[in-house]
Amino acid sequence: MPTLTDTLVPSYLSGTWVTPQNPSRVTEVADASTGEIVATVSTDGLDLAGAIDHARTTGQRNLRDLTIHERSLKLKELALYLGEHKDELYELAYRTGANRRDNGVDIDGGISTLFTFSSKGRRELPNGHIIVDGPTEILSRDNSFLGTHIYTTLPGVAVQINAFNFPVWGMLEKFAPSFIAGMPTLVKPATPTGYVTAACVRLMVESGILPEGSIQLISGSARDLLDHLDHRDHVAFTGSAATAATLRSHENVQVNGVRFTAEADSLNAAILGEDVTVDSPEFEAYIKALFVEMTSKAGQKCTAIRRAIVPTPLIDTVATALTERLNAKVVPGDPRDPDATMGPLVSQEQRDDVAAAVEKLIAAGGQLVTGGPDQLEGAFFAPTILTFADADTDAVHDVEAFGPVVSIIGYTDTTDALRLAERGRGSLVASVITHSPELAATYAHNIGAFHGRLHFLDRDDAKTSTGHGSPLPHLVHGGPGRAGGGEELGGIRGVKHYMQRTAIQGSPEHLTAITGEWVRGAKVNKVTRADVDAGTATHPFRKDLATLRIGDQFASDLRHVSLEEILAFAEETGDTFYAHVDEEAATANPFFPRRVAHGYLLVSWAAGLFVEPAPGPVLANYGLENLRFITPVTYDDSVRIELTAKRITPRVTDDYGEVCWDAALFNQNDELVASYDVLTLVEKVDTTYANWNK
Amino acid sequence: MPTLTDTLVPSYLSGTWVTPQNPSRVTEVADASTGEIVATVSTDGLDLAGAIDHARTTGQRNLRDLTIHERSLKLKELALYLGEHKDELYELAYRTGANRRDNGVDIDGGISTLFTFSSKGRRELPNGHIIVDGPTEILSRDNSFLGTHIYTTLPGVAVQINAFNFPVWGMLEKFAPSFIAGMPTLVKPATPTGYVTAACVRLMVESGILPEGSIQLISGSARDLLDHLDHRDHVAFTGSAATAATLRSHENVQVNGVRFTAEADSLNAAILGEDVTVDSPEFEAYIKALFVEMTSKAGQKCTAIRRAIVPTPLIDTVATALTERLNAKVVPGDPRDPDATMGPLVSQEQRDDVAAAVEKLIAAGGQLVTGGPDQLEGAFFAPTILTFADADTDAVHDVEAFGPVVSIIGYTDTTDALRLAERGRGSLVASVITHSPELAATYAHNIGAFHGRLHFLDRDDAKTSTGHGSPLPHLVHGGPGRAGGGEELGGIRGVKHYMQRTAIQGSPEHLTAITGEWVRGAKVNKVTRADVDAGTATHPFRKDLATLRIGDQFASDLRHVSLEEILAFAEETGDTFYAHVDEEAATANPFFPRRVAHGYLLVSWAAGLFVEPAPGPVLANYGLENLRFITPVTYDDSVRIELTAKRITPRVTDDYGEVCWDAALFNQNDELVASYDVLTLVEKVDTTYANWNK
Repeated sequence: MPTLTDTLVPSYLSGTWVTPQNPSRVTEVADASTGEIVATVSTDGLDLAGAIDHARTTGQRNLRDLTIHERSLKLKELALYLGEHKDELYELAYRTGANRRDNGVDIDGGISTLFTFSSKGRRELPNGHIIVDGPTEILSRDNSFLGTHIYTTLPGVAVQINAFNFPVWGMLEKFAPSFIAGMPTLVKPATPTGYVTAACVRLMVESGILPEGSIQLISGSARDLLDHLDHRDHVAFTGSAATAATLRSHENVQVNGVRFTAEADSLNAAILGEDVTVDSPEFEAYIKALFVEMTSKAGQKCTAIRRAIVPTPLIDTVATALTERLNAKVVPGDPRDPDATMGPLVSQEQRDDVAAAVEKLIAAGGQLVTGGPDQLEGAFFAPTILTFADADTDAVHDVEAFGPVVSIIGYTDTTDALRLAERGRGSLVASVITHSPELAATYAHNIGAFHGRLHFLDRDDAKTSTGHGSPLPHLVHGGPGRAGGGEELGGIRGVKHYMQRTAIQGSPEHLTAITGEWVRGAKVNKVTRADVDAGTATHPFRKDLATLRIGDQFASDLRHVSLEEILAFAEETGDTFYAHVDEEAATANPFFPRRVAHGYLLVSWAAGLFVEPAPGPVLANYGLENLRFITPVTYDDSVRIELTAKRITPRVTDDYGEVCWDAALFNQNDELVASYDVLTLVEKVDTTYANWNK
Repeated sequence: MPTLTDTLVPSYLSGTWVTPQNPSRVTEVADASTGEIVATVSTDGLDLAGAIDHARTTGQRNLRDLTIHERSLKLKELALYLGEHKDELYELAYRTGANRRDNGVDIDGGISTLFTFSSKGRRELPNGHIIVDGPTEILSRDNSFLGTHIYTTLPGVAVQINAFNFPVWGMLEKFAPSFIAGMPTLVKPATPTGYVTAACVRLMVESGILPEGSIQLISGSARDLLDHLDHRDHVAFTGSAATAATLRSHENVQVNGVRFTAEADSLNAAILGEDVTVDSPEFEAYIKALFVEMTSKAGQKCTAIRRAIVPTPLIDTVATALTERLNAKVVPGDPRDPDATMGPLVSQEQRDDVAAAVEKLIAAGGQLVTGGPDQLEGAFFAPTILTFADADTDAVHDVEAFGPVVSIIGYTDTTDALRLAERGRGSLVASVITHSPELAATYAHNIGAFHGRLHFLDRDDAKTSTGHGSPLPHLVHGGPGRAGGGEELGGIRGVKHYMQRTAIQGSPEHLTAITGEWVRGAKVNKVTRADVDAGTATHPFRKDLATLRIGDQFASDLRHVSLEEILAFAEETGDTFYAHVDEEAATANPFFPRRVAHGYLLVSWAAGLFVEPAPGPVLANYGLENLRFITPVTYDDSVRIELTAKRITPRVTDDYGEVCWDAALFNQNDELVASYDVLTLVEKVDTTYANWNK
């Protein structure tokens, strides 16, 4: 057995790896398969207050030096680095009982989460420090007083308190959104697998990719951690409902404004739809889903299926089919054994907990179909199926066996199944297996409010589904009630959890300066066609990203609209809608005065009015947003365009960026005719086309 | 003095007005000005559990019978009804110490909130029962497995526990969003002004507009209310931070999943920018803002300014100017007295609390400039200004005098002012008075995270600003830390607080059925131009809202693109961008193969390909969303369009509605060329144009 100092897992605090010297209390951690002591942990004498201060000062400052896109790009670099070194993590993780497939979920899943957030951060967020939320609200008749909303980075530390089952994914799925948000992280992993987390943090630090202070690690218990937190800080907890309640009752959460979210294990259901017959592809998909959730991570997943809710006549059929699949496929064994297909639970303590839960379920009336607490061997627990004659047995909906255990209960009709699903009192996820879209809608609308995620499975998506138990970075993870009431991930939604939404009221100038987006009514740097022709001003399309500023505006002359042009456009495009070509019908239409110009004609003309024909820094118009036709334009009206640089988003990985232009089309009476955003790609430095394709 | 039974304020529970018979405990409520007992309250023997069940069953069911637009329209009807009867509320509210202007804020402000939510609910939300959140996420390569998010109504009761200061607005600002969300409300007003709330609820019930079970009222204390709630329910509390902490610590919040949000009074700041000079319009605006927040509701507002943070050299100047304005304008008196300009506090108890808080501030070093606790008369409290030599005096940032009291402190530079603002440890709102947009941005970016709302004031918006202290229905209200950590209002954001967000995973058919919006990949009812010409199928543009279904699709033939047409379009529109007319330059551009068709030409042609020229139920194309040009189209390519009914939104007040069409433009190789949403207005019943303009 190694000596204590060989195995003491270090912490990374305030920029230094620290290991307690002569700790008075240590906790030993055993290899899940062999029982050998592989690590010890202690937090004796660690300076947690100093670490939190380090995050709030150095960490915050260093992250603020980076834009949202720069932070996002670092996540990709980090993902690549971890991918190159993941074998080290695999080797360590085998000791926790996780086999190769489990590590795929935990380690590769964590790395994949970094990639997804890196991509979403750069594609869906601005390349700055704040996020604008929703449209501008007009709060006064003359537009001099406006409102909007912004998200800014929470000014404290993002504390993670994680569960043992996902030492890598559990950290990275919280780290990725908080890092993009600009909030430094302090990770407190669970002791049984914390040495894997520590190894991952070591790789993250060694990579040199992350700014100092953006990640810290506490290896071991940290009961007084919350004592040091306040209204600036955020705690994201994953684990048991009981521990969540204890943490949530801390005075700093109750009174002093610490943001606290919990993701707790729950009694997740998988429901076999009324429409499914035993010989349909959906039945097979159902059995497979149950099998995967029992055996993946040996059932040690917050999202695993605990309640199989099936039409009562099918209880035994489902139990038999599942038993057969388990018998055929499960070979329990040390994850390092190439023949083994399912590893042990993480520890003998965990095995005892699961055995106790199963005993409770049996005592409550559960019939053991296979497995059970008598077949223990080390930390291994046999896959266990229970059936219940009474679907309303309280224990089924309340007692969680956090291992390869499922309870099968029966329902009489869909209404009954909805009611049983709800008895979980809030879950992370439920699966519904049905080939009926109408039935899917009934489930979604009736049990949606009790779930953070609903997973629908049928023959069309059975092969491509990512599975019941897999939270995806794109979708929210968490659930109401018993599941803890928290929400994580969900793409950019997850980033916003680490930011504060604030309403902003002020003048157009105030809002423009604060949001970094030009707001109608704010001052412009106006250039007319006459200015451009006279050579006295530069058309904004001739400015590259280095010189273009929000508020730079091109204002065209008026262009007359003739009936002949409308009719010619109808002829050429084929758009002979009566409103453009039939005077009587157009006049009868409640929205038009008489024949009107096509909206697409006006937008095409607008482009003709603002264009700069020769090659320049504007590379392409790649799209258009929020187009609204407001005032009809009839023949003998005239139109003119004001095009104003509204939002500039330089890319961190390309030599161009996006520019969004506010387009306001007016008629000869200065009435707004159409309003839209023009999306363009603009070079960072104008190379005209001399350098293209080099 | 009236007898007890004359004044006992009734409750409205389970569809009946109830008054406790022979209550053992009653609380008396006095007229704020005269001290006369005007009401007594008791909840002895009321069946709260029954009322909660009534909401969860009858209330939920009746609200579910209405769509989001139908509920929204009812709010408008209710607003009109309350507007007609508001004088009754005014008369009662005078007894609480509120004068005409205060009632304008409370009663008219509450009615106006109903109007805003009614309008936003119909303009910004679908006319159904769920809300789709964000775009579809592609989760598999072949598009067979997708993800999205939906909001569904929380299945329980929305409990309001309100503060005394806004007996009408305080109820309606919570009622409006929860009603649109479909969640029934149970109101528990504060005892000192609950009789005004009761009168308003009586009007709401008498109006007959609201479905039974959607509003209930508990008049009096209800200490065991939370005992009856669980994971289905939502509690929105407004009041003191201390009471918020007590409620939040309830087991049903801690353990059993009751959603709890708090909006607590806080030490809101108003900061005079470094750029402001004494003779600038901003200085006057600052003094006026301080004056309004001290005297409106006699300073009894959660949002009132408690801390005036000014450049240190200006402390005395500000104190003097504010004192002069108070002396010139404040005439304390009974709100029924036409000469009085500021009413009493709500009660003598409240007056004593304010006096005690001011004593604390003085003991901590506050210098009394005017007012103070010695000038009490009944429930009246004189406007009180304190200055502090030490801006870091803890009491300034911690002790709230909930009345017409302000503390003035000085800062050395903007960094110091930011630091002092943060010392409030989270506030509902701060005002920053500055004519410098850059300074506004500095404040927003640095103290945003400590505030729910930031209000910027200068000469441009001083006249049109709705003021520091007024939460608006369009903008979020609430704040982090000391302010309770909650969020209300914010337009549609507020509606979502009463709904659960759930990730949905499934096939295109699943998602289409669940969301009610057609998703690409789901089945279509396809009609081609040949079908239409042959008379074997109906063009979807010939279907009115009663017959049109999502998934109805028109698929055009291919149209050839010639260089001549591209050049002609360039000529006619004036859009002679080189990519369309200069072969060499187009080829050099990194995004184009050679000369390409204008995106606007393609979109115009698409309209020509899908149009039905003759009058029919499609009245107008009013806009376009999410247009992206994906694959360049060059001459001798061909294009075709698939236009599919994606989302149908019948209006409740018009004989037409919105139809959003998914437009997918393909080239001859079935590559996606452009993708967008076409927005149209479509008649509910096709009257062609025979009935127009009647």
